[in-house]
Amino acid sequence: MLLGSIEAGGTKFVAAVGNEQYQVQEKIQYPTTTPRETIQKSINFFKKFSDLRGISVASFGPIEIRKNATFYGYVTDTPKPGWSHTNFLGMLRSALDVPMYWTTDVNGSAYGEYILAMRLNQKLEALTYYTIGTGVGAGTVLDGKFIGTLGHPEIGHVRLKRHPDDLSFKGICPYHGDCLEGLVAGPTFEARLGKKGQDIPLTDHVWDIMAYYVAQAALQTTLQLRPQKIVFGGGVVSEEFLKKVRKEFTVLMNNYIDVGDLEDYITMPLAKNNGSATIGNFALALKEVNRVSRLEIL
Amino acid sequence: MLLGSIEAGGTKFVAAVGNEQYQVQEKIQYPTTTPRETIQKSINFFKKFSDLRGISVASFGPIEIRKNATFYGYVTDTPKPGWSHTNFLGMLRSALDVPMYWTTDVNGSAYGEYILAMRLNQKLEALTYYTIGTGVGAGTVLDGKFIGTLGHPEIGHVRLKRHPDDLSFKGICPYHGDCLEGLVAGPTFEARLGKKGQDIPLTDHVWDIMAYYVAQAALQTTLQLRPQKIVFGGGVVSEEFLKKVRKEFTVLMNNYIDVGDLEDYITMPLAKNNGSATIGNFALALKEVNRVSRLEIL
Repeated sequence: MLLGSIEAGGTKFVAAVGNEQYQVQEKIQYPTTTPRETIQKSINFFKKFSDLRGISVASFGPIEIRKNATFYGYVTDTPKPGWSHTNFLGMLRSALDVPMYWTTDVNGSAYGEYILAMRLNQKLEALTYYTIGTGVGAGTVLDGKFIGTLGHPEIGHVRLKRHPDDLSFKGICPYHGDCLEGLVAGPTFEARLGKKGQDIPLTDHVWDIMAYYVAQAALQTTLQLRPQKIVFGGGVVSEEFLKKVRKEFTVLMNNYIDVGDLEDYITMPLAKNNGSATIGNFALALKEVNRVSRLEIL
Repeated sequence: MLLGSIEAGGTKFVAAVGNEQYQVQEKIQYPTTTPRETIQKSINFFKKFSDLRGISVASFGPIEIRKNATFYGYVTDTPKPGWSHTNFLGMLRSALDVPMYWTTDVNGSAYGEYILAMRLNQKLEALTYYTIGTGVGAGTVLDGKFIGTLGHPEIGHVRLKRHPDDLSFKGICPYHGDCLEGLVAGPTFEARLGKKGQDIPLTDHVWDIMAYYVAQAALQTTLQLRPQKIVFGGGVVSEEFLKKVRKEFTVLMNNYIDVGDLEDYITMPLAKNNGSATIGNFALALKEVNRVSRLEIL
């Protein structure tokens, strides 16, 4: 049996097939152009595999994930040009006759990290995965399911206490200005300092400001959900940066509640090379295949 | 069958017994003095009812709710004098031989509101209950269970974007200064203006500042959990105040995601006279009675 994964990002798509041990058998990536062209490339890739039994899609958003909603499976109102109101899942389904799972990019990554932790014998009842990249988002696995009843979380748009050395920065979110995403997404480096984050050494004070905000995100999630682990991925994140985040988190928490060893609690992904979502997708695709075959038996 | 409820607050206890329709049969309240005296009063009350079959306790905290923890059933490190490391549940169990459920005050209230919504044929998959009173806390029912794996939520201690007209106020939280609780708990009125909240008309600008912060709390919960309803209780809250909160929430959200009718989404409790926790306790006690009798059959 082969399982399919689409990690649909605003910049690029990664499509892969893997086996039931979630090992990648073949993988391709291609830029996110028009919906028709990009989704067709995904379809062409999967058509090659006759023993493909299921697919999971982890997509950029916002997307409609409520199964009873009219526009279930759509990318909804997205700032990504050309993609608003795209029937992503419907286009796949009309071309590929296998069970399909549909969720957000960060949910896919959260699930992958949940699976990888289990392989290390860490049975996590609750794990949150944040991405800090072009945008900011998070997904949470709780008791094996995703949090989000009225829709998926949009944690990137919470407000934060502003850093005293950053009060003049307005933030870059077109909706909210200085929400979490508006303060720490990758493009904030250019907005603040006129150069890319990768060109700014970790010794620059801007990284302390970033860490202060990201630590508040971790604090909010901790105080709201009390998860066992918070994983940070995305282009802005590095182990050196997370060291700063842990330091700020410690100050903000001020020993109020115990989260255990902070190095195990606030961490980089276990999956290497941004592979969390692909592993999560394989596992979700398998879960969907099993769910559908149980229904067929009944 | 009678069901027992203890709503254990830092100021007073309310103990009640009710029937399986969650109607109160008898109720008493008494001030929170020493643990021994206050818990003994609860025991004496319940001893009167020979057909009492189960009890649920919704307690102020922090408390230990992890069933496998050494100090399960304890009030842990609390600022309430004399109550730190009180084996609350153990004291009850040594005197009363019925199944007991143990949770936080806000979880008890959240569960009561969840039950009352169901009676109105609103099957809520996710509901959050905030109290804004002497302290600030929240509980969330998700798929009939409480959120909180490493322990119960402590949402009162998140940080917020400060209101421009409130920047000089340091906040009153002894741990964090200007966290949510430090900015909006009842005693902040005296700290800001030297008089009690009940003596300050809703037209005073301080209520706009309060609403801005409480709206951020609602926003955080919305973006993290996407619940179907957020209920606000506690002494600071009134319908007139929630009107201001909804207004601030609308500005902060800026149409980013749809939560439906805001009057149904951000609401006062359905239970009258702070009765949410008592109803929640009756329902949780019944659930515990049923769980234990299932175990006994097995």
